[in-house]
Amino acid sequence: MKDFTIVGGGLVGALQSVFLAQRGFNVHLFERRPDLRTADIYQGRSINLAVSNRAWKALRKVGAEETIRQIAIPMYKRTMHDTKGNLSFQPYGKEGEAIYSVSRGELNKTLLQIADTYENTNMHFNARCTDVDLDNKKISFVNDETEEKSTQSYQYLIGTDGAFSAVRHRLMFNDRFTYSQTYIEHGYKELHIEPNEDGSHKMDPNTLHIWPREDFMLIALPNIDGSFTCTLFFPWEGKVSFQSIKTEPEIISFFQVYFPDIIPYIPDFVDQYLNHPNSSLATFRCYPWHYKDSVVLMGDAAHGVVPFYGQGMNAGFEDCFVFDQMLDEYANRFEYFFEAFGKSRKPNADAVAELALRNFIEMRDLTGDPAFLLQKKIEGWFYQKHPDKWVPLYSMVTFSDFSYEYALQKGDYQNAIMAQVMKIPDLANKWDSKEVEEKILHLLSAT
Amino acid sequence: MKDFTIVGGGLVGALQSVFLAQRGFNVHLFERRPDLRTADIYQGRSINLAVSNRAWKALRKVGAEETIRQIAIPMYKRTMHDTKGNLSFQPYGKEGEAIYSVSRGELNKTLLQIADTYENTNMHFNARCTDVDLDNKKISFVNDETEEKSTQSYQYLIGTDGAFSAVRHRLMFNDRFTYSQTYIEHGYKELHIEPNEDGSHKMDPNTLHIWPREDFMLIALPNIDGSFTCTLFFPWEGKVSFQSIKTEPEIISFFQVYFPDIIPYIPDFVDQYLNHPNSSLATFRCYPWHYKDSVVLMGDAAHGVVPFYGQGMNAGFEDCFVFDQMLDEYANRFEYFFEAFGKSRKPNADAVAELALRNFIEMRDLTGDPAFLLQKKIEGWFYQKHPDKWVPLYSMVTFSDFSYEYALQKGDYQNAIMAQVMKIPDLANKWDSKEVEEKILHLLSAT
Repeated sequence: MKDFTIVGGGLVGALQSVFLAQRGFNVHLFERRPDLRTADIYQGRSINLAVSNRAWKALRKVGAEETIRQIAIPMYKRTMHDTKGNLSFQPYGKEGEAIYSVSRGELNKTLLQIADTYENTNMHFNARCTDVDLDNKKISFVNDETEEKSTQSYQYLIGTDGAFSAVRHRLMFNDRFTYSQTYIEHGYKELHIEPNEDGSHKMDPNTLHIWPREDFMLIALPNIDGSFTCTLFFPWEGKVSFQSIKTEPEIISFFQVYFPDIIPYIPDFVDQYLNHPNSSLATFRCYPWHYKDSVVLMGDAAHGVVPFYGQGMNAGFEDCFVFDQMLDEYANRFEYFFEAFGKSRKPNADAVAELALRNFIEMRDLTGDPAFLLQKKIEGWFYQKHPDKWVPLYSMVTFSDFSYEYALQKGDYQNAIMAQVMKIPDLANKWDSKEVEEKILHLLSAT
Repeated sequence: MKDFTIVGGGLVGALQSVFLAQRGFNVHLFERRPDLRTADIYQGRSINLAVSNRAWKALRKVGAEETIRQIAIPMYKRTMHDTKGNLSFQPYGKEGEAIYSVSRGELNKTLLQIADTYENTNMHFNARCTDVDLDNKKISFVNDETEEKSTQSYQYLIGTDGAFSAVRHRLMFNDRFTYSQTYIEHGYKELHIEPNEDGSHKMDPNTLHIWPREDFMLIALPNIDGSFTCTLFFPWEGKVSFQSIKTEPEIISFFQVYFPDIIPYIPDFVDQYLNHPNSSLATFRCYPWHYKDSVVLMGDAAHGVVPFYGQGMNAGFEDCFVFDQMLDEYANRFEYFFEAFGKSRKPNADAVAELALRNFIEMRDLTGDPAFLLQKKIEGWFYQKHPDKWVPLYSMVTFSDFSYEYALQKGDYQNAIMAQVMKIPDLANKWDSKEVEEKILHLLSAT
């Protein structure tokens, strides 16, 4: 019987525990923080996630889909707010397709509860990993409350301890371990819109709200309690930035100019702005993800990405899905499994990292650009007519099983075609004409 | 009086000590290893360096140039060895221009000796940095021989502790510290050619010998004792690699096929190959290089590069030169100095990292390509005629004061022009004709 020690009881660690427990393996889950299910550990940081196809697929495989649907709110489109409060819309996919807003904390709790129903799962909280002895397969923890230290042996160690992974940090000292942490020039700050007195949402809850302002943006995602979690993605430095907007008059004038329609929804926006922390955003890349046949990284520990495609958790859950799939394939040659797993996932992790960086520009800038919205409308229309010939990039990433690597490549190819299409004169008045359809078909057949 | 604590007594740390000591500052130099001047710490790793203009300039500024010239051997050209033992040549620069082979150990010893002549310099060996307390300005060391621990306060801390810098490692946990370590797919192994019995060199010592074999290469640099240090740069994996060449018959056949002319010079090449370690090669990038006004990184700690341009030490010594220069400029606003230093050097560090990666391809592959050698011959010829209009990239990097950043950009521009020139029919027979000269002049004026 195989013994798996999982370091990190966040979303991926919890789901991975369920996958392994269902196969009958012994699972020892160690989590730095107190037990989420009983402690309130909200840290003033972004707690909304968008569940899409890849995460649903993994949740479905362990039988958790329906439970999670209860705490998720479908968002069918983007709603863009301009500086006058006018709205425009962009559907995410085909009729009925949505991404689902869910609270990180609630999702995490639910997955831990499911994992805990298996007898072969042992959970240990307040256990912060301080070191891994790779050669002797021992891992050390400290309880940050009691300062008690302990050391455990492991057979197989899975590092799901997030973007600042302690397990990965240990691997970093291995020869030929490639690693990077790359911060972007924007940080973020969370704001909160309370529900109406009757518990209803103050804006349409079935959409992702965006205030695109070219170099920065505000977004809002709905919560099931009627509130919205808003996130301001903002440059650290520059003319309009965390550095330049600091005092009450600066904050008021900033909101009046850029987000006037949100002011009535957040009466205490000055206090929130002043008191909520600014957090940084980075991409984490590394390789290899394994050490011999004894240690492997998954989720953010292997591939932490910026949040703009809403794919961080989806990519991590897809790791769990693929891991489970490959377990069968490698059942009789388990010594090669961790290496093969990392090798198979790495190109997709690199692709989703790139997609996430690009989507920031799309969200904060392009969603306010009529030409961009027209292009997306044409792509959506052509996709409906020729689903065998074209799938918009967003749909490939969010609603399909295509690999991230394929989606990125195919997306670039389609974008080059659309660059030609967008040159058609008077396009706005004939975007859904036979001429445009023929042009795209011709370009597709010519390349 | 300012107090500088320098962590790392390698080449850059030793030279930086001299610079600061000459200004009358108190210098506390801490080095992990035993005192180089009395201990033999050869580790079977590449110990040859090529001193060129940037390093000479820095050495000259502290008055150490003549001392170092005594232990350096000029190399005026590349000598390429083909698989039949035929030689071809490529001059490094203009008549009389050379890069200088020097032993890392000897250079380091000499610089430590010079630093030690200053009363205001205190040296501490066997002091491995284990932690830096950035807020309280305290640094901890351990003596790896006695296991004795100590903690020191510092006023200003300079991290010159190399590519695996402990100081940088501490900075890595600061928010928004961007960092990467990127290993290449080749490693290296050192081999040694003994002198003749009369102490003379077995090959021409005034050249850098290259055995370019497309995907890999062997090089040899002369030592003052009549020996050569050879380095095999070799893929870790693949058809012809460290992985595939392991046994005595494999090694013999490998040398017979690829390096037949070196066999007589290294009678024990099989033993050397089997017993010398394989080492890895990586690029290290980070930013920012400072913490507040109290800590700054220099040399490999800030920008470790692969060795193929022979610029690692030159870039580090240029750090010292620029640091000294900027000290005057920032004398009255020292609190901004470390930040300004890093900001000014970072683009050059990125450029030299890129140049070093590219030069591996040039050395191992292109130096065996007649078209490439012809291009370089044309560039050298045009440079002689129009030194105000053209400086070959290698000369900009190695023999000029142009910044690395400028050299890289200008080099790309010149290379685009040469791509046009190389299309002239029958070029080999008229490479130094008026037609070619006019063509280059035309392209230069047209862009």
